Amino acid sequence: MPRPTQPILSTRNITDAALDAVDATGDFTMPGIAKQLNVTPSSLYTHISGRSEIVELMRIRVMSSISVPHPPAGWSERISAWGWAYRRAAVEHWRLIPLLMTRSVRTEVTFDIDTALVQAFSDGGFNSTDTRHAISTLDSLVLGSVVKLSTPDVAWTQSSNPSEVTREAANPLRTDDTFEFGLRTLIAGWMAQCVVRLYTESHSDLPVTSR
Amino acid sequence: MPRPTQPILSTRNITDAALDAVDATGDFTMPGIAKQLNVTPSSLYTHISGRSEIVELMRIRVMSSISVPHPPAGWSERISAWGWAYRRAAVEHWRLIPLLMTRSVRTEVTFDIDTALVQAFSDGGFNSTDTRHAISTLDSLVLGSVVKLSTPDVAWTQSSNPSEVTREAANPLRTDDTFEFGLRTLIAGWMAQCVVRLYTESHSDLPVTSR
Repeated sequence: MPRPTQPILSTRNITDAALDAVDATGDFTMPGIAKQLNVTPSSLYTHISGRSEIVELMRIRVMSSISVPHPPAGWSERISAWGWAYRRAAVEHWRLIPLLMTRSVRTEVTFDIDTALVQAFSDGGFNSTDTRHAISTLDSLVLGSVVKLSTPDVAWTQSSNPSEVTREAANPLRTDDTFEFGLRTLIAGWMAQCVVRLYTESHSDLPVTSR
Repeated sequence: MPRPTQPILSTRNITDAALDAVDATGDFTMPGIAKQLNVTPSSLYTHISGRSEIVELMRIRVMSSISVPHPPAGWSERISAWGWAYRRAAVEHWRLIPLLMTRSVRTEVTFDIDTALVQAFSDGGFNSTDTRHAISTLDSLVLGSVVKLSTPDVAWTQSSNPSEVTREAANPLRTDDTFEFGLRTLIAGWMAQCVVRLYTESHSDLPVTSR
């Protein structure tokens, strides 16, 4: 008879246990994770420095699940696919967001964004500063759209029925429409910048009002 | 000698006290507010139904501080001004955002968005559905940009120094640049939609590939 396998404690299963707890309850505790993994709380600290690092590891876990299609897909198509994949991951783990905002200590952990996403902006003609801004903008749109999942939508007419507005707010499909609109607007804006750039580069002898 | 004035308990000063507490500590309690206002906790309930309504009232307070310039400013200029005013208010009261996400009960309270903002999109040629999506998109960009104030920025090169990235994250000026880029991109995207619409409307006899 095989002996029961002993779970090997690792950064990975600590992160898994914490993310499960956050998804279910909105928070996690070190004793709770230890209990879940059938280890003592103190043994967790041989793998991670503390609560703050676990929050960071969860964020990295969620981000690293997102991938970008490769060429021949066009640059804007690749960016759009990344945006949607990120949105889906963020909706799934939305309760992680308040936790990211309320932690008091910043750790030294970070993550590397998929280089394929950087390549997509580069293929669209963006320099490194604009690429960084553009990725942050997309990040903001996704995070903000998920914050809005749990807040009532703006009531922009006097006649709006408040209860209808607040009931609508919990519906991800409604916010999917809005996200689609927002993503399309960003890409249209980036394409417009791209067109202006191509035009001014190929007509450098012509007067242009701005570039 | 005038008698000391007794503070009149109102929805307004309850909201003020709660917002002060949230800005300072990230949260508020009913006993804390009562103590601050020198009243008994139970007297608060003659003005508000509970914690959830106070959260909603704080959100309304912050939103109603934002105004839109009027014509002759162009539609995109008015939208941009609203976006920046909202961003400033959201940065000032950023600790309210996790609270909005973590409350468990939705109230029936809502607020009316400045009709001048709706007018600005209308002047840009947007119908009511697109106006609603556009305002929600702007809302997402602002909220997301503020969530990012308290989270490390994406590290998009292999060579990034993690400690540098996380140190950068607390700097609102850096995210102001990114917000400016994002807002400019949205407006460029909306202008592109506007141009396509004007073109197709004035050249209805010409074939167009899409509208």
